[in-house]
Amino acid sequence: MKKLINHPEGFVKETMEGIVAAYGDQVKLLDGDYRILLSNYKTREDKVAIVTAGGSGHLPMFLGYVGEGLLDGCCVGNVFASPAAAKMADMIRACSKGKGVLVLFGNYGGDKMNFELACETVEMEDDIETKMVIVKDDVASAPKVEADRRRGVAGMVYAFKVAGGAALKGGTLAEVASAAQHALDNLRTMGVALSSCIVPQVGEPTFLIADDEMEIGMGIHGEPGLEVRKMMTADEVAELLFHKISEDMPLVKGDEVSVMINGLGATPLEEQFIVYRRIHQILREKGIKIYMPHIGEYATSMEMAGLSLTIMKLTGELKGLLDINARSPFYTNYHL
Amino acid sequence: MKKLINHPEGFVKETMEGIVAAYGDQVKLLDGDYRILLSNYKTREDKVAIVTAGGSGHLPMFLGYVGEGLLDGCCVGNVFASPAAAKMADMIRACSKGKGVLVLFGNYGGDKMNFELACETVEMEDDIETKMVIVKDDVASAPKVEADRRRGVAGMVYAFKVAGGAALKGGTLAEVASAAQHALDNLRTMGVALSSCIVPQVGEPTFLIADDEMEIGMGIHGEPGLEVRKMMTADEVAELLFHKISEDMPLVKGDEVSVMINGLGATPLEEQFIVYRRIHQILREKGIKIYMPHIGEYATSMEMAGLSLTIMKLTGELKGLLDINARSPFYTNYHL
Repeated sequence: MKKLINHPEGFVKETMEGIVAAYGDQVKLLDGDYRILLSNYKTREDKVAIVTAGGSGHLPMFLGYVGEGLLDGCCVGNVFASPAAAKMADMIRACSKGKGVLVLFGNYGGDKMNFELACETVEMEDDIETKMVIVKDDVASAPKVEADRRRGVAGMVYAFKVAGGAALKGGTLAEVASAAQHALDNLRTMGVALSSCIVPQVGEPTFLIADDEMEIGMGIHGEPGLEVRKMMTADEVAELLFHKISEDMPLVKGDEVSVMINGLGATPLEEQFIVYRRIHQILREKGIKIYMPHIGEYATSMEMAGLSLTIMKLTGELKGLLDINARSPFYTNYHL
Repeated sequence: MKKLINHPEGFVKETMEGIVAAYGDQVKLLDGDYRILLSNYKTREDKVAIVTAGGSGHLPMFLGYVGEGLLDGCCVGNVFASPAAAKMADMIRACSKGKGVLVLFGNYGGDKMNFELACETVEMEDDIETKMVIVKDDVASAPKVEADRRRGVAGMVYAFKVAGGAALKGGTLAEVASAAQHALDNLRTMGVALSSCIVPQVGEPTFLIADDEMEIGMGIHGEPGLEVRKMMTADEVAELLFHKISEDMPLVKGDEVSVMINGLGATPLEEQFIVYRRIHQILREKGIKIYMPHIGEYATSMEMAGLSLTIMKLTGELKGLLDINARSPFYTNYHL
């Protein structure tokens, strides 16, 4: 197995040790627990807290968004596996500042089940009010009529950013949750995969794909996509992803959007910019303006090659919330 | 060839189109030339200019460091190939503000030959004073007695940062060049490669390496390293890289250093943090403090898997210059 690791069993703990060793001034463990990361940034004391959780193996997702104007806490499980409900409950308790806790995460069975249990527990035992908002941005994972089954992928970053801004502004739990939901209602993501990742404890590729093929719409854990196709050009990929997204969420002349090209791990930045270039052309031709593009690795699948496109249609509210400063050791969006 | 590109011939231009489409407020082309990127950040008018050049295929190196407190301009060639001297001269002219131009780049034959010619040209034709500082940080590329032959790799980022700080502070050309050289005298880099990259115009891997092997000390263009070895653990790799660097540049108790773990392209952030964790342990055991760690992709070889370690021994001057704010679309180091 070609990985720079020690033992597969140590992968998550040693990653977290590295993060805390590097950024101990900005983030910290909860009581020495290597699965729970809390923000160490100074912030207002009367803030709605925002937390997430999910499997490891997606850095900078999820841990990388613990910071200022973003998440207050994050709890991770094993690679591609949900953390336990008890850890989630510990994290919620640690993050709560008395104004309620927004629980914002991707639509995966384990995460949902465990967060439901964790929220019940802290509500009963600690009288902490929580609200769940679930990210379902991957248009390839279910048709529009079953949009509720869709998985959460890179668009989650925009939800963190928007919710984080709303919380910093002093919004109530209902307002922060509604801002996150408003972002999610206006964004869609779709990706392509060119190669598999290798889960450390498995030790071999999650799936096989021929040297001249790519999978359209594959999930970030290797969930099957819409179809396997012969390699397409960057422009064809950009056009296909744009088409699928705009079919699901129509865009018209005069709209303003934020665009994220998210590298899944092994795809060079150069290629991400080549794809971005075509998306930029398409939107310009349609009279749609781009605001605050994001190009880079925001939610990976370890060494998977491929990328996703996220488009968020902006309203005045969303633009205002995107403009609020945010920073973490892994993400800086500061307006000076 | 499993790449998200259109035609190999368009790789560099289309990458640059994407960068300018995304960040046109922060950087700009020189007269529509898709090989020359200039900073668009507001800066003092009486500043020494700093420029670099090099082959494409290393993003965020080199173009990604055009910004505030960093480079004023950057000129790129084809993938892994030097740009022409005439382009370099155009860039120097465009960046010069009358206080001289620092030409700061990696020790590769083509870049050196072309920059020498470009510097002569602008000195003769335009009376622009230039100084060259050449980055030679890769300890694996030549033994210490022939350190002058060493190649420039990821440590170049620290040289950009330090020189950029010195220029922002208002240093003269001699002072900015001396600060860059001072950084370089105090830093060393070494890397390992786990897989090859694919140059678009070649279409197949630059070198082959067995599934259970890694190359120690390989260059960022696939230049041969010191040896091919069976896969080592992350800790063994960290220890080996640290040993080679500290053999070349002794570190003692009480020293303070900055550490960079640079992913070469396909190596997940998780693995980079696992390696960083071991470097942090080693330094702590030796009583050496770490300041401002850098972990991520700073100088890649497209989709090559592997990473490098850079250690910069800090002096008061270097620490002060690292502390000066710097930002670009690809790199933010802001102290608020």
